[in-house]
Amino acid sequence: MFAPAYFDHNATTPLDPAVRSAMLPWLGDRCGNASARHEYGRAAKRALDAARAQVAAAVGAEPDEVVFVSGGSEANNLFVKGAAGRLPAGLIAVGATEHPSVLRPAEQLQRRGWQLRRIAVDGEGRVDADDWRTVLALRPALVSVMLANNETGVVQDVAALAADAARAGGTSCFHTDAVQALGKVAVDFRALKRAGVRALSVSAHKIGGPQGAAALIRDRRVDLEPLIAGGGQEGGLRSGTENLAAIVGFGLACELAAARRVEAAARLQALRARLESALAGMGATIFAATAERLPNTCYFALPGIDGETLVGQLDRAGFAVASGSACSSSEVGPSQTLLAMGVDPLLAQGALRVSLGAGNDERQVDDFLAAVQATTQKLRRLLGV
Amino acid sequence: MFAPAYFDHNATTPLDPAVRSAMLPWLGDRCGNASARHEYGRAAKRALDAARAQVAAAVGAEPDEVVFVSGGSEANNLFVKGAAGRLPAGLIAVGATEHPSVLRPAEQLQRRGWQLRRIAVDGEGRVDADDWRTVLALRPALVSVMLANNETGVVQDVAALAADAARAGGTSCFHTDAVQALGKVAVDFRALKRAGVRALSVSAHKIGGPQGAAALIRDRRVDLEPLIAGGGQEGGLRSGTENLAAIVGFGLACELAAARRVEAAARLQALRARLESALAGMGATIFAATAERLPNTCYFALPGIDGETLVGQLDRAGFAVASGSACSSSEVGPSQTLLAMGVDPLLAQGALRVSLGAGNDERQVDDFLAAVQATTQKLRRLLGV
Repeated sequence: MFAPAYFDHNATTPLDPAVRSAMLPWLGDRCGNASARHEYGRAAKRALDAARAQVAAAVGAEPDEVVFVSGGSEANNLFVKGAAGRLPAGLIAVGATEHPSVLRPAEQLQRRGWQLRRIAVDGEGRVDADDWRTVLALRPALVSVMLANNETGVVQDVAALAADAARAGGTSCFHTDAVQALGKVAVDFRALKRAGVRALSVSAHKIGGPQGAAALIRDRRVDLEPLIAGGGQEGGLRSGTENLAAIVGFGLACELAAARRVEAAARLQALRARLESALAGMGATIFAATAERLPNTCYFALPGIDGETLVGQLDRAGFAVASGSACSSSEVGPSQTLLAMGVDPLLAQGALRVSLGAGNDERQVDDFLAAVQATTQKLRRLLGV
Repeated sequence: MFAPAYFDHNATTPLDPAVRSAMLPWLGDRCGNASARHEYGRAAKRALDAARAQVAAAVGAEPDEVVFVSGGSEANNLFVKGAAGRLPAGLIAVGATEHPSVLRPAEQLQRRGWQLRRIAVDGEGRVDADDWRTVLALRPALVSVMLANNETGVVQDVAALAADAARAGGTSCFHTDAVQALGKVAVDFRALKRAGVRALSVSAHKIGGPQGAAALIRDRRVDLEPLIAGGGQEGGLRSGTENLAAIVGFGLACELAAARRVEAAARLQALRARLESALAGMGATIFAATAERLPNTCYFALPGIDGETLVGQLDRAGFAVASGSACSSSEVGPSQTLLAMGVDPLLAQGALRVSLGAGNDERQVDDFLAAVQATTQKLRRLLGV
């Protein structure tokens, strides 16, 4: 079987074999609806509680601060719409480079009388200090700034931003999307809470867990209107029969990600350094190169080369990479994230993301570099550059 | 290992072994984000399309009428809130015995200026003809009446009700929750559409599929506001990385349920007849006994016996059954469904649901009857009846 080298871990990660093993009994004879009052139901409830404790421990939260949902997009929508649903219409401020699952629900709020303000970023993708002061003066009721960006990997100093908001006053709730951060940099809800963060989103399938499980971690003082109402599961905040197998996998994936983070980060950062120094030698622009970034993420462009075309050529050569954000099936044109950073649209059109993970090694990186070299030479010949 | 006899298939079904086998590759090296533009992503997209065709075929719909979501509760919430979000505030009418995932979001709409009207049912749990006429005269903008009830198994003549609504005029959209109906009675969206139904909900884990996948099937003319907005998956109606393994399992489970339905229904109906004739001999009341019901569902009470207590005793004796609705973790007191049917609250307090499925046989039913007999005698002795 043809198995291309997988360099798209920010889109979705392969399932960790240990996580898979933990899930299998829940896809076998352990048939559980955690609300049922018989042995099968109680076993499901125990597994749910254990997973909740694992997720909480991995992010420095209390188990009763964890609300299980079906994915990161749901977690972000639950925060944006759920918090807004309990407040009088006001101002919501979100980073200009937020994930669409924060931007789109924030746009939807406008139809309910809310105002939306995008917070500008600087050329390295960090929240722009001047614009941030301007935004805080507007006293936004809700703020959402991501811990790490899915495309560039840029890490924001969310604790400092939340502390600014707390000092400025007027903000009811500060949320951070930590979906890409988890497992790659430290995510400590307790410390973030002290700074003023009230909620954060995490997801299983970005850390070696399965698709179908994620969580909104929230301070219990945050009042949320449920997005999915019904049987009253998850303390009434998220109804529906729990996806037990996925949640069990999420729990273990969180535990493993926390245990392995420091070592994995060092290894991936070294691999990325190897990758980026060679790319720079080929004349590539590395986006947000001087910002603090996730250790696994490299976002670059080669002058005169179209990103989509390069992704297609590399795919045929056996390398799975992304151009712009693979989370966004409907987006066309250059990355909105790069445009918000002030990157020239022509250069942005060439953007290609390599996101490394557990299965990658030096040989794959070297093979990839050789393929990029060969492909760009070929494309430039064809284009007569 | 202690494996109680499982009689709670309306809460969740054991995963069909063939479905499990189909899912495993997607929990292995097939690591797919269906939005990604490389070989892994394309393989995921192909699997997603194949599952969409399977689900559509099983319910007589077109593939592009299928919106994949995470569960039945989400499908119902997407309809109620999604359709209401595109209409001026008006009247929503829902059956008095609807699942909480229809009732609760309908209640939430009241905070957005909507009016909620519960449609009365008769003593057998069917929509009350007189009240239905009254409701239609109020010209509800949205109507939701379930195809089959999760507790009683009562099947409503939804096609006739939708035709009534179409004749009466004024209803923008008629939805039916078919989560319990699928695989047990015929579900034909094409025929329902001709009668005036515009959307229906189905779910994987009630038909031998996994938890974590479900669908809202909808006429493409229905305008819906997405509940989970973001990357634009599912035609913009449900954002978030698709849960590929669960969706692949859902597709096959639908195909198998459709192929096996007639034979399975006959077998389960015979098993239930055996069960109910013996229960009647013990003096049990069978709820909705003369209504058209799902072939697998038996909802009964024994005079003077508390349902919760009996569930606990039977659990210890090795039988997994439900008292009232196991979907509802927060509900206490007698079943709202039975109260809506006018059942005496004292008798309703004794309600116990047996929902049969693929793994059940005559011997289990006979063992269960013996256990019910022994347990009730013991309880009556203790209570001095």
